[in-house]
Amino acid sequence: MTNVGFIGLGAMGAPMAWNLDDAGFDLVVYNRTTDREQPFAEAGISVADSPKHLTKRCDVVCLMLSDGDAVAEALERDLGVLDGVDEETTVVQMSTIGYEETLAAAEMVTEAGGRFVDAPVSGTVGPAREGTLVGLAGGDEAVVGGVRPVLEAMCDPVVHCGDVGQGTNMKLFVNLLLGDAMSAFAEALVFGRQNGLSVSDMRTVIENGALDCPLFAGKGATIADGDFDSRFPVDYQFKDLSLALDRAGDIGVPLSQTAAAREAFSAARARGYGEEDMAAVIKPLEETADVSVRED
Amino acid sequence: MTNVGFIGLGAMGAPMAWNLDDAGFDLVVYNRTTDREQPFAEAGISVADSPKHLTKRCDVVCLMLSDGDAVAEALERDLGVLDGVDEETTVVQMSTIGYEETLAAAEMVTEAGGRFVDAPVSGTVGPAREGTLVGLAGGDEAVVGGVRPVLEAMCDPVVHCGDVGQGTNMKLFVNLLLGDAMSAFAEALVFGRQNGLSVSDMRTVIENGALDCPLFAGKGATIADGDFDSRFPVDYQFKDLSLALDRAGDIGVPLSQTAAAREAFSAARARGYGEEDMAAVIKPLEETADVSVRED
Amino acid sequence: MTNVGFIGLGAMGAPMAWNLDDAGFDLVVYNRTTDREQPFAEAGISVADSPKHLTKRCDVVCLMLSDGDAVAEALERDLGVLDGVDEETTVVQMSTIGYEETLAAAEMVTEAGGRFVDAPVSGTVGPAREGTLVGLAGGDEAVVGGVRPVLEAMCDPVVHCGDVGQGTNMKLFVNLLLGDAMSAFAEALVFGRQNGLSVSDMRTVIENGALDCPLFAGKGATIADGDFDSRFPVDYQFKDLSLALDRAGDIGVPLSQTAAAREAFSAARARGYGEEDMAAVIKPLEETADVSVRED
Amino acid sequence: MTNVGFIGLGAMGAPMAWNLDDAGFDLVVYNRTTDREQPFAEAGISVADSPKHLTKRCDVVCLMLSDGDAVAEALERDLGVLDGVDEETTVVQMSTIGYEETLAAAEMVTEAGGRFVDAPVSGTVGPAREGTLVGLAGGDEAVVGGVRPVLEAMCDPVVHCGDVGQGTNMKLFVNLLLGDAMSAFAEALVFGRQNGLSVSDMRTVIENGALDCPLFAGKGATIADGDFDSRFPVDYQFKDLSLALDRAGDIGVPLSQTAAAREAFSAARARGYGEEDMAAVIKPLEETADVSVRED
Repeated sequence: MTNVGFIGLGAMGAPMAWNLDDAGFDLVVYNRTTDREQPFAEAGISVADSPKHLTKRCDVVCLMLSDGDAVAEALERDLGVLDGVDEETTVVQMSTIGYEETLAAAEMVTEAGGRFVDAPVSGTVGPAREGTLVGLAGGDEAVVGGVRPVLEAMCDPVVHCGDVGQGTNMKLFVNLLLGDAMSAFAEALVFGRQNGLSVSDMRTVIENGALDCPLFAGKGATIADGDFDSRFPVDYQFKDLSLALDRAGDIGVPLSQTAAAREAFSAARARGYGEEDMAAVIKPLEETADVSVRED
Repeated sequence: MTNVGFIGLGAMGAPMAWNLDDAGFDLVVYNRTTDREQPFAEAGISVADSPKHLTKRCDVVCLMLSDGDAVAEALERDLGVLDGVDEETTVVQMSTIGYEETLAAAEMVTEAGGRFVDAPVSGTVGPAREGTLVGLAGGDEAVVGGVRPVLEAMCDPVVHCGDVGQGTNMKLFVNLLLGDAMSAFAEALVFGRQNGLSVSDMRTVIENGALDCPLFAGKGATIADGDFDSRFPVDYQFKDLSLALDRAGDIGVPLSQTAAAREAFSAARARGYGEEDMAAVIKPLEETADVSVRED
Repeated sequence: MTNVGFIGLGAMGAPMAWNLDDAGFDLVVYNRTTDREQPFAEAGISVADSPKHLTKRCDVVCLMLSDGDAVAEALERDLGVLDGVDEETTVVQMSTIGYEETLAAAEMVTEAGGRFVDAPVSGTVGPAREGTLVGLAGGDEAVVGGVRPVLEAMCDPVVHCGDVGQGTNMKLFVNLLLGDAMSAFAEALVFGRQNGLSVSDMRTVIENGALDCPLFAGKGATIADGDFDSRFPVDYQFKDLSLALDRAGDIGVPLSQTAAAREAFSAARARGYGEEDMAAVIKPLEETADVSVRED
Repeated sequence: MTNVGFIGLGAMGAPMAWNLDDAGFDLVVYNRTTDREQPFAEAGISVADSPKHLTKRCDVVCLMLSDGDAVAEALERDLGVLDGVDEETTVVQMSTIGYEETLAAAEMVTEAGGRFVDAPVSGTVGPAREGTLVGLAGGDEAVVGGVRPVLEAMCDPVVHCGDVGQGTNMKLFVNLLLGDAMSAFAEALVFGRQNGLSVSDMRTVIENGALDCPLFAGKGATIADGDFDSRFPVDYQFKDLSLALDRAGDIGVPLSQTAAAREAFSAARARGYGEEDMAAVIKPLEETADVSVRED
């Protein structure tokens, strides 16, 4: 039985960790604020008092944090992961961070003697609970193979995308498309509503055509209901589009539509909707056009 | 039994007309160039020698032409539809044209004593053959009700979107989103491929996530195969985005991402890909980034 | 002495007509609403009661109207210009209209037996008063040469840009750049102000660098003063960017930045600033960012 | 007499340093590669063998380097600036770097006991030689006042923009506008040329209108000549637009036109023109439209 550590028990991380427990792994958890550790402690799961101590006790250490700075901090801080890494450790970095940040993290871990896989996940809280996140793994084939059972406790499918960093690049690929699609949907809905079309008719038409997908079905419903509780917030989508555009600039791919989408999310942040669901990208456009896309 | 006329036997129109025949309507067809009429004549279907004569013989006259100028010409020319319209005629305008063009056509038909429905369709050649186009009808409830059996021979579902012009507005809504999604997909694929991701992995990830839809499945496959035979050409998608942006300007909805998408299709036209499938919007981007998104 | 007719006595047209009078031409004026003719009548200048009568009395007929529909109407209406054209008439179309609209107008005039020059002007009310508009003439060399003295009464310089339509294309060129520059200036000012920079410092820096130009000096001052009285309204700039993008689509030039600028002006119209000066393109951005670019 | 150190003798830095020498300051220079120090050594100017030694000998230490990483390296490396800073030292950071990078540099310098001014400059090699760069200073009033004579040897005018970081923000403001204007000019020229307008006519029209400015006069001439030798390269303009967009995201200002401009420069980099003059942003557009904007 593999000992698995999990650092970062947020909205995504907590259900992912529970799935590891359900799958029978010997789990150790850590969170910077202890309140998020409480339900795990109550269920008899080990809680480490530092990333270092967690790492010393585990073969596989999963990180699920908010951004690249948080990942670097978890690794490098006093009593951090790096202090606990040895040649038996594989660090599985699952947060969505930049490509350069991923390479830097990998370098720190391997210099400390450990192995590294980047494995960000595609999907939101629902799939996180159900263990059906899409796992996007980057790393040496043998190393990814070694942690595959761990990933499969949280993800279905697990796609091995290439070397270290390619999991991250795949995540940027999919969230780039997600952000573009969400923002385009917002434009289409406001355009249609201002024309006097009903929201339910627009949804029916989408559901019967080439664009029928969970995103438009789900966001069509929540927008119609005026429900902007966050599954994946505007702030995170903005961050991911920014990371994708940074990377695109580095590798020579101009992305004019994605750039427009990033500014749409920037407008939503500027208007104060950063913590609402990414669907709130529609709100500044509704305000500009003075029209409401709510079910009639 | 209703007599139904069908004008415009192109790639979309021909299978739509065959479905009317299959449904048992007494069909009369017309096309400006006679070669497209030949298979219908050979099957014993009536061929009219002018839109006027077709209209005189039919209760319902369907138009499926390339653009607003072609529609205006079919109505207004010598021996045109207007010359044949009387109080028994309902003209069903199914081409994708602009909103103002739709209102102008409706006015001409009603002034000539007839009834008018705009009913553009969403879907390409496959659904046209299978009778599963999404019919987007605009017009008076009773008039739309009267032609519903005709529409249902070609479409499933038929959505009544509102008054005259609202079918057209719904078509602009859906093709706006289609164009944005296609162009965003192109950006994402080139971004991913330049990063070294495999096309099949990218397709797998999309198919397992919130963006799983027929468009990305289908275009992912044809792009990977290098198959740009037109289902729906770049030129038409460009036209539809231009019509949507014109309309958006008139009603006060700024659409910055859609505007970026239109320019991406404009680039594909400028590079000579106007008659290829809309997926060829990826080609200028591949050329700029010097990378090929073909299955490896 | 040439008899010159002038149709369209708006904010631009009136001072242009006065300059023709000052230059000693035998002037006849016409405006659809008579109140704008009043000052000319009081000054003893001939006022025609229809475009036809004006045209019959003049060798050169200048049109300065709001858009292509207004130009077509002035030509084609009952008692319109075309009713008065003969082989002695040269129509000088000075309004900003589309390229296709220009060719259509030219064709109507030449079919009626007359000659045609398109000569839209660059510049606003100030240069219109001072006779220093930039005249952008398109047409046959001899015909442009024939009306050059008329144009030079209103313009300095007069640039002969090529055949019929090229004056219009040059106008679209310059107003495209003007719209892009105005909207970019708005973005820069809001960015700077949100950063806490003073408006006067920003203006000083621009005035001492490679971008020192009348537009930024003038609009910097009026924005700082909160003066959005129209020299050239948002609606017109939006129209001109739309015409330029239409033309660019026809000739195969993708213009992604110009497309973004058009949507910025569209946002200003949507927010109700269409009749304010083009500098009001800054207002939606100020509202989104919740910052005011007024002199502190 | 103040001892002034100058680190970074590149295309901009070298003439700036010469101006300090001309103004009579006791100059010490340093460059990472010694070939750029050679002319100074030959002229009898002191050359330091490390940033530390330079700093120890000087009251004012100017940095003029390529980017934020280079600045951080000059400060933090072994024998770096920080090793030489004491309470008599003022570091004047003149490179164009990000806002966060500026604050981080300032913090390092002040923690080492020194004073800090950020003073990036607006202008290219010509003004650098002539001492007419626009100096954009951020910092405490007394500290900026103390180094004003140094800045005035290189700049005219020197604008005090606010606290530390505001010089940098002003630089991002002006280069944002510069990048947008350059890219818009490229779009306009390709649009006009594809329409058949002559380059010289387009330049004449610009020079006689509201957009008459050194940028368009200068770039109009060099583009017409096919001269893309770098005054300010595409790569740097791309970097500055990226920095501005990063900052805009942080402070909540959506910039859709600037985002489009960044992607235009990204396209130029992708096509291999990164080291050419920023005017080469026109080349991908010429290639797409298959038209050449060279003097005819």
